Amino acid sequence: MNNYVKIFDTTLRDGEQSPGATMTSAEKLEVARSLARMGVDIIEAGFPAASPDDLEAVRRIAVEVGTQPKGQPDAKVPVITGLARANKPDIDKAWEAIKDADKPRIHTFLATSAIHMKHKLKMDPEEVVQRVSEMVAYARSLCADVEFSPEDAGRSDPEFLYVVLGEAIKAGATTLNIPDTVGYTTPDEYFKLIDGIIKNTPGMHDGITVSVHCHDDLGMATANALAGIQAGARQAEVTINGIGERAGNTSLEEVVMTLKTRHPVFNLETGIETQQLSRVSKLVSNYTGIVVQPNKAIVGANAFAHEAGIHQDGMLKHQTTYEIMRPEDVGVNQTTLVMGKHSGRAALRSRLAIMGHSLDEAELDKAFARFKELADRKKVITDADLEAVIADEFYRPRDVFYLEGLQVSCGTLGMPTATVRLRGPDREIYNFASMGTGPVDATYKAIDAIIKMPCKLLEFNIHAITEGIDALGEVTVRIQSDSSGDTKMDAQSEQEYARVYGGHGADTDIIVASAKAYINALNKLIIAKTEGTQPVPNNFGVMLG
Amino acid sequence: MNNYVKIFDTTLRDGEQSPGATMTSAEKLEVARSLARMGVDIIEAGFPAASPDDLEAVRRIAVEVGTQPKGQPDAKVPVITGLARANKPDIDKAWEAIKDADKPRIHTFLATSAIHMKHKLKMDPEEVVQRVSEMVAYARSLCADVEFSPEDAGRSDPEFLYVVLGEAIKAGATTLNIPDTVGYTTPDEYFKLIDGIIKNTPGMHDGITVSVHCHDDLGMATANALAGIQAGARQAEVTINGIGERAGNTSLEEVVMTLKTRHPVFNLETGIETQQLSRVSKLVSNYTGIVVQPNKAIVGANAFAHEAGIHQDGMLKHQTTYEIMRPEDVGVNQTTLVMGKHSGRAALRSRLAIMGHSLDEAELDKAFARFKELADRKKVITDADLEAVIADEFYRPRDVFYLEGLQVSCGTLGMPTATVRLRGPDREIYNFASMGTGPVDATYKAIDAIIKMPCKLLEFNIHAITEGIDALGEVTVRIQSDSSGDTKMDAQSEQEYARVYGGHGADTDIIVASAKAYINALNKLIIAKTEGTQPVPNNFGVMLG
Repeated sequence: MNNYVKIFDTTLRDGEQSPGATMTSAEKLEVARSLARMGVDIIEAGFPAASPDDLEAVRRIAVEVGTQPKGQPDAKVPVITGLARANKPDIDKAWEAIKDADKPRIHTFLATSAIHMKHKLKMDPEEVVQRVSEMVAYARSLCADVEFSPEDAGRSDPEFLYVVLGEAIKAGATTLNIPDTVGYTTPDEYFKLIDGIIKNTPGMHDGITVSVHCHDDLGMATANALAGIQAGARQAEVTINGIGERAGNTSLEEVVMTLKTRHPVFNLETGIETQQLSRVSKLVSNYTGIVVQPNKAIVGANAFAHEAGIHQDGMLKHQTTYEIMRPEDVGVNQTTLVMGKHSGRAALRSRLAIMGHSLDEAELDKAFARFKELADRKKVITDADLEAVIADEFYRPRDVFYLEGLQVSCGTLGMPTATVRLRGPDREIYNFASMGTGPVDATYKAIDAIIKMPCKLLEFNIHAITEGIDALGEVTVRIQSDSSGDTKMDAQSEQEYARVYGGHGADTDIIVASAKAYINALNKLIIAKTEGTQPVPNNFGVMLG
Repeated sequence: MNNYVKIFDTTLRDGEQSPGATMTSAEKLEVARSLARMGVDIIEAGFPAASPDDLEAVRRIAVEVGTQPKGQPDAKVPVITGLARANKPDIDKAWEAIKDADKPRIHTFLATSAIHMKHKLKMDPEEVVQRVSEMVAYARSLCADVEFSPEDAGRSDPEFLYVVLGEAIKAGATTLNIPDTVGYTTPDEYFKLIDGIIKNTPGMHDGITVSVHCHDDLGMATANALAGIQAGARQAEVTINGIGERAGNTSLEEVVMTLKTRHPVFNLETGIETQQLSRVSKLVSNYTGIVVQPNKAIVGANAFAHEAGIHQDGMLKHQTTYEIMRPEDVGVNQTTLVMGKHSGRAALRSRLAIMGHSLDEAELDKAFARFKELADRKKVITDADLEAVIADEFYRPRDVFYLEGLQVSCGTLGMPTATVRLRGPDREIYNFASMGTGPVDATYKAIDAIIKMPCKLLEFNIHAITEGIDALGEVTVRIQSDSSGDTKMDAQSEQEYARVYGGHGADTDIIVASAKAYINALNKLIIAKTEGTQPVPNNFGVMLG
């Protein structure tokens, strides 16, 4: 049996489809780029049948990330896959989205548990077998690389799974993925499930990859995935930070670092450059607005022993006494003092390159201007500050509305007031003043009065990204349109969800950062409502305040 | 073998000792009360040898939570334990702290892995065996209930463990706890470790409880703890939200809910009222300032299927299709609209009682005043708002400095200014105005100018606790004294850590909440610097601004 475990990242599909993790096409592309740079083998870029936007986002990733970069014949190119239900229209859309990738894969699925077949599919087991056989064959007629998942395999009858999977192999599937869709199994059970499938599926051979896909509802996704790998699975479906619906998916960083840290036990390899884990974790957290708790394994702020608080004269007697991994193995940068007011353009370029950002000249100009502006207000600029500037400057959607000015007064007197000045898509300037229950509420009310895009604020988070309160504050918000038509289909439950848009802003003034984050989220909502379906209007019915 | 798994909660010891989770004595007491109410069997209340304050905090918990409440002869009273290194002074202090509990337990430990014995203890294996034997016997001479832990058991030689544990039994230990101190093992390995100990330790008998204690460095703490339980362990050492050093400990809620949800597999019971899990999780998160990520199993905001975003007309075809637990099983309250401006005192009392807060008349008066004040600013008051009010009003330390007034102006003009008015311990009023890089920085600079207690801000978090931006904003901060003497000893590594103080504030104005949180943390620092060691001074060298 080979000792290489393929890492299949589904941050952009199973992660992104979870409520609240909606990303723009530009953000998805940047995440895909980062995943490819880190050495991910397969990127599941989305569920193309969800909407024309989703199809287009997958297509861009297939073209821009899934093809050999010019002049780099040795660069590793990831497989790009799109999810499709077991029906022709879904499979056609998936193929349309991925066909321009160098290594396209169609991933199709159908539920096999009694409860799903009865209540969701309303199909007999025989019909399920028939459908799988037909649809895998159809996918295979389009694409040489086909993955099939029996949804809710964790609660399916193993004997029935052997039959279904045997038919999938016969019809041309090359990867068989075994999802514990509801996060139900124990490592012991999941080991037996994978072991049974490898031993009992008719037609199983070395050319078939068995894959694990676990959910964390009982907190055991990582242990389950590794148990499946020990039973012989050689692909792991995972997400960055373990994001995903409910309690989320198996986290990429935990599986990869366990295989690395406990190499003598598993004797398995992955292609991941682990030094990039920390950076990619932050990128995904920023784009989705989903925070990582400090005690999260591998990528939490406290994950490494005694980073903060320990006295320099009381260093550990022996590093490995309490540390089984080194922070530098996952790219936790222990240098905080990196740049100051007098650092130049070249220094900025080289620091950003070390951090993995390759900007062109025009982009570097913009980044340098922002850097100088920040350096005027803040003595020391850290890597975290730079990441925030980059995220704020480059990974925003096209500005529909832009914050020209903000003035706020607040305090214990209880009359928080904000005056907002926005530049609209028509290049007009709009002003509005509003009171609120607090300074952010006042600011948001004023913005609402100008933009007039009814929405609900689901979540609002601020954190100071660096030590010290003179730090750049980062704000993430999540909003949802009030209009009922703005929905998105979940591939598995086939439920329509209200779309959720995340926004992100950074500034030393947290009220300004809050305003930027909200406008950012509103811009995404406006673009989503218009892109693909109708031309971008010049004006959203703004009024002069 | 009996089928009851004792839940040993170490949130107040292994959780609290992690950098940044410092709680005041009042907060610790409230957490202990909540744990007891929820049905925890054993509360590890602290490490009494760490400092006189720590001893006193454990003693208060032993007296106030560890004794039969008057008039409630049937109430379940938890065992109260304190940690002690394997030496007489530590054991004496632990005994002093816990001896007034109805069911006291001394928990002592010594490392048994080659790496710890060599680099940390600098002791031979024979010396370790000898010391364990002597110190367990000494603890047993004071207390009938003694627990022994071979630290770093996960990396210890099993044959050596059998010898050490056999000596501990001979010397009178009644519980043997097996820590995977560095979070290193896989479920398979940990199962074998526990199984081997139960089968091979000389003198093992039914009166001895074997206990699991796992860390989450590789993301497998829960799976490991459950593997140990399947091998025969009948005590689980856990923390709320899985907090703890580095990636944290096994999370109580994951172990308890797995045993409940997968009851047919494990056939084991715990004494936990799971409906209280959500509330206790929030309490610990607020007191420690350690956030819970939305995709955290069981207690994360997204842990349950489709809470947010799903259209009412698109409800799941069958509840169990994607849900293996019901939100109400862990006390996730789906009612958000609970109280309004016209709700009365009786309604507040009854709502708070349902939420588990029993206030006396004077406390209810205070809570009601805060409630009315909030209702003037916010139409709908939710349970989350009430929790914030209660936390803010009752679980603060004694006010040394109190915020009398705050006035802030900020915005894109870049001259954020704050004027702060504080009442000092001498009842004098102090005013100071300051500029800063942002409104919070300006506010904190003004507070610093008045209080003059040099410290470093380690972390700053704001979140809106409820939907909508008119919500009460909650701020948590973590600070560290700049003076080098303010340290705290870690029981295991014996390292001195700089103490970290958490502060918490709630207000509809997030800048006001930020000011309250910072003053709250500074008050804790001031009290810690003075309580136990010297009388509280009247004045901290404040100056008139």
